[in-house]
Amino acid sequence: MINITFPDNSVKQFEAGVTPLAIAESISSRLAQDILAAYVNGQEWDITRPIEEDATIKLFKWDDPEGKHAFWHSSAHLLAEALQALYPGVKFGIGPAVDNGFYYDIDPNGNEITASEFPKIEKKMLELAREKNAIVRADISKSDALKLFGDRGESYKCELISELEDGHITTYTQGGFTDLCRGPHIANTAPIKAVKITSLAGAYWRGDEKREQLIRVYGITFPKQKMLDEYLVMLEEAKKRDHRKLGKEMELFAFSQNVGAGLPLWLPKGAALRDRLEQFLRKIQRRYGYQQVITPHIGNKMLYVTSGHYAKYGKDSFQPIHTPEEGEEYLLKPMNCPHHCEIFRAFPRSYRELPLRLAEFGTVYRYEQSGELHGLTRVRGFTQDDAHIFCAPDQIKDEFLKVMDIIFYIFKALKFENFEAQISLRDPNNKEKYIGSDENWHLAEQAIIEACQEKGLKARTELGEAAFYGPKLDFMVKDALGRRWQLGTIQVDYNLPERFGLEYTGADNQKHRPVMIHRAPFGSMERFVAVLLEHTAGRFPLWLAPDQAVVLPISEKYNDYAFEVARQLNEADVRAIVDDRNEKIGKKIRDNELKRIPYLLVVGEKEAQNGEVSVRKQGEGDKGTMKIATFAANLTEEVKNLTNQ
Amino acid sequence: MINITFPDNSVKQFEAGVTPLAIAESISSRLAQDILAAYVNGQEWDITRPIEEDATIKLFKWDDPEGKHAFWHSSAHLLAEALQALYPGVKFGIGPAVDNGFYYDIDPNGNEITASEFPKIEKKMLELAREKNAIVRADISKSDALKLFGDRGESYKCELISELEDGHITTYTQGGFTDLCRGPHIANTAPIKAVKITSLAGAYWRGDEKREQLIRVYGITFPKQKMLDEYLVMLEEAKKRDHRKLGKEMELFAFSQNVGAGLPLWLPKGAALRDRLEQFLRKIQRRYGYQQVITPHIGNKMLYVTSGHYAKYGKDSFQPIHTPEEGEEYLLKPMNCPHHCEIFRAFPRSYRELPLRLAEFGTVYRYEQSGELHGLTRVRGFTQDDAHIFCAPDQIKDEFLKVMDIIFYIFKALKFENFEAQISLRDPNNKEKYIGSDENWHLAEQAIIEACQEKGLKARTELGEAAFYGPKLDFMVKDALGRRWQLGTIQVDYNLPERFGLEYTGADNQKHRPVMIHRAPFGSMERFVAVLLEHTAGRFPLWLAPDQAVVLPISEKYNDYAFEVARQLNEADVRAIVDDRNEKIGKKIRDNELKRIPYLLVVGEKEAQNGEVSVRKQGEGDKGTMKIATFAANLTEEVKNLTNQ
Repeated sequence: MINITFPDNSVKQFEAGVTPLAIAESISSRLAQDILAAYVNGQEWDITRPIEEDATIKLFKWDDPEGKHAFWHSSAHLLAEALQALYPGVKFGIGPAVDNGFYYDIDPNGNEITASEFPKIEKKMLELAREKNAIVRADISKSDALKLFGDRGESYKCELISELEDGHITTYTQGGFTDLCRGPHIANTAPIKAVKITSLAGAYWRGDEKREQLIRVYGITFPKQKMLDEYLVMLEEAKKRDHRKLGKEMELFAFSQNVGAGLPLWLPKGAALRDRLEQFLRKIQRRYGYQQVITPHIGNKMLYVTSGHYAKYGKDSFQPIHTPEEGEEYLLKPMNCPHHCEIFRAFPRSYRELPLRLAEFGTVYRYEQSGELHGLTRVRGFTQDDAHIFCAPDQIKDEFLKVMDIIFYIFKALKFENFEAQISLRDPNNKEKYIGSDENWHLAEQAIIEACQEKGLKARTELGEAAFYGPKLDFMVKDALGRRWQLGTIQVDYNLPERFGLEYTGADNQKHRPVMIHRAPFGSMERFVAVLLEHTAGRFPLWLAPDQAVVLPISEKYNDYAFEVARQLNEADVRAIVDDRNEKIGKKIRDNELKRIPYLLVVGEKEAQNGEVSVRKQGEGDKGTMKIATFAANLTEEVKNLTNQ
Repeated sequence: MINITFPDNSVKQFEAGVTPLAIAESISSRLAQDILAAYVNGQEWDITRPIEEDATIKLFKWDDPEGKHAFWHSSAHLLAEALQALYPGVKFGIGPAVDNGFYYDIDPNGNEITASEFPKIEKKMLELAREKNAIVRADISKSDALKLFGDRGESYKCELISELEDGHITTYTQGGFTDLCRGPHIANTAPIKAVKITSLAGAYWRGDEKREQLIRVYGITFPKQKMLDEYLVMLEEAKKRDHRKLGKEMELFAFSQNVGAGLPLWLPKGAALRDRLEQFLRKIQRRYGYQQVITPHIGNKMLYVTSGHYAKYGKDSFQPIHTPEEGEEYLLKPMNCPHHCEIFRAFPRSYRELPLRLAEFGTVYRYEQSGELHGLTRVRGFTQDDAHIFCAPDQIKDEFLKVMDIIFYIFKALKFENFEAQISLRDPNNKEKYIGSDENWHLAEQAIIEACQEKGLKARTELGEAAFYGPKLDFMVKDALGRRWQLGTIQVDYNLPERFGLEYTGADNQKHRPVMIHRAPFGSMERFVAVLLEHTAGRFPLWLAPDQAVVLPISEKYNDYAFEVARQLNEADVRAIVDDRNEKIGKKIRDNELKRIPYLLVVGEKEAQNGEVSVRKQGEGDKGTMKIATFAANLTEEVKNLTNQ
């Protein structure tokens, strides 16, 4: 008999050789039906693979990323099986699961494979899936593997095998198809009920442009047809909401190869939007006792050697900046924290000053491979809505509670009604990975867990996901399409105060070391604006909209009045523009509704005479005629209600 | 006879060999008394040196920088003469005029020279000055010079002579003292009526720390004792107002050697002040049709090769940043303009969009020698209140008028009542120094001159002071101590639009090249805050003050109420803090008056009961007791009146 320990620390006995599937069956047949993958002693494990000794176990279903991963990895094999059946002679590269589905790199070897073949491939995959073939793991010697794949002409697989260590090679077989693979996989092909081949792309073998060019076939599968249908609708909608597309259409930001990839240029409307978000956050932060600071975008290299960031980012990021004076080297700052530590130690500090909350909209620079760059979500320069809270160890919990208040306030104001939290703790089996004392880690982890409990926040706890310098609490929002985005983070740091030798004088007149808390509710302005664009499809709440109102003169005769209206509104801090094109008023209304401007103000003879505007609200229609000042006051009141809820 | 041309282009005839002094005498004896230096054909010239051929002439008095320069240069010689008389064997290095006075580097050669000797030196200098010795220029051969100074043991002078070209060596002699010198000097020592030796410092010979350490003796002289007295009073006051001292006392900014010299860290109160200035400028700029943008702090090196900035700043500034990907190089941006050009050309542009005014509070980085750094006035990273106006050539004048409106508005709001302007034009004799066509230069120069005339702005016109890319208009303010600071600049640029190939479609449907105007009313946030600190001695106007009000509980019993008052005020956007120290109320009032906080709010039993505060205004005293909300409303109104004048 062996002892199996579950995530809740309960222990059950089973016979040696029991599989995760059998363990699930012992709990409920429903669970046995649902599980797709398992971790045994923290290692990925097929659910049909026997467990021979005492172990901890975790079971994963579709809703867990690990479950989807196994499902899609097996689907990649199914795709290969189908391709082999349809296109004799096709040769295989690699076929992993990815964030949304899977792909397989193939050498068509003379076969013509284009998008028009997708339905045929999908049909074949479903046909094979319905055979419900078990997916069977086997250990294989290096020489046997080379023979097996060599006989089939799989030259790419043979190249991979030749680099593997004998005794650690496994294959997975379903039906008549065998693939070189480390696994894990789902038990059999039966759960794969819906298939979509999504696209083709070129891909160099091993990412090396001097090697063979292969075709990368992308696909996605689901356990239910309905899930695929929903996914495809979501995908269509996501395309329309792609922040890169909206950002261009709405003239929010641009990129220029002359400036550099991944370095966004914020255009007037985008910069105004960003400023609005910053002011919003500044205001709530001021209320919570934050103090803004401004620090340079570079620092002496030694500053980052002290902080440890040079060891972390140094080689893979922007390289040191030399100067005409010898011996000086600067770095673009990858983080704001070292600068804030220097501000902390610019003065002798007393316990009476704690918690000291230093905030900065600090632009940092980190190099990303050009292939990794993506719109505003993956850039090389970005502005963190950063703050560092210097506090006493017994203030951590209280500060977490306060930061959570700010984050909840933001999510509410921006209508992210769906969010999840994750507490990232140490890997208790791998403590040497982390900097700081055991006792300090325990204290901080407890503080976070208790703060979440007090707030009634359901948070998933992940061991081993903490940063090297401390545990953290991350927030994931679900956008209008149900997609998850990581936004907002609160991290404890016992490390930097140590490295910078930070101290304060306690009530006991002794020197003490403060704790630092890093936090960024938005994460970065760039990423947040991207998510907000995709979440709202560019229909920003009134208080954020780059243009809040557009004045539409019914003919050119009223252009002067229209510009006067806009001038008065701008004077009253309402962001208003004029559409003075020589177009019919009907067309102007339609065009500006498409532009997502919250208020349309139509002006003609009567309005001009009375100093009024005829108000139309997006999605609500006619709101009647009113004085310019009344409209401005109403709008200001509406904005106030939206942000001060 | 030779023709002498005056600055107003009038021409007079004189006999060859006439001196500037004689020319001045021919105009008025008063002028002859006042002139100190001259330019002949653009070259520095002793006023007693004969002119042998046709020439243009400029005469300088004490009020001209050139006049002071000659006066102080001659005073340096007088100092050397005095030192030679007082301290036998003393050896001389170099002795130039500087911004405020002059210095001489000396090797005391065994003599003890300390601050206690200053009165003796001053007395000797005045004694020698009263001898009214002529200061006489002489050409000397290299060998004679080496012998002359060698015989006197002047090893430093000999070293300098050995590096000079024979035939171009001159000496100046007054009384018994002869110095190696290029001149020019004043006619004789008589005008030096007041002397102050100000300080001593160590200085390596030729700035080389491996060479001899000399003593640098600083001094200043004036033509009247009253001027010296005023200068010393001003100096005392300037010391008190030194922005580095005030910045530290008021906790506005700090420097850290770990971050890097010349890279300011803006502390909370300083960052708030800076933000206030930015918001003030943003608001007026919005009214004038500016649009804010945000661009990265780095750009591809090729961007600056295109703009020409790499050629200008490249070698002497921060060096290129390499990345892990090959062939990519970035530069810290030394200017924002290339980025704004890229924004201009991100879209096809129409004449209807012009003038397009892109504004950015853009932080730029330029390397300065560590010896050149000074507080916030000379830094390595600074934030320009930058904007670039893209317009048609015939819009230049109008845009200059509008920018001048903004600058005048700012000067008025900040009580810089005394300012001067300078129009910098091309050197008409040196046109090859400048980029752009003759016709374009003429157009732009005319536009600036006319704009100044229309505004009734008296501006001094300087030939040869234009930037290489276009003419400009600069503003110099006089601060409360009468010192001049360069603030605010408007520059035409025909160059960058050419280099970036900028185009717009005109009303004629043809492509046209826009003109760019660079402008920065503050210059930089750093420099402006420094000047403002020294101008106001830290007593900022109410709307700028980092803390507008401090709440003073009369005893600890009322601390809670004091914090509640501060909370309500902050909620109403009044910047309020609490002084909850356990001190007598009298001491709290005195301490906080010293801290330059505009309003002191005393609270005790009566105030706490009635929700009131007892108001004291800096410099005006008791303002009575009022409700918290009333005080907040009054203050908000006061701020509004101060900035919307």
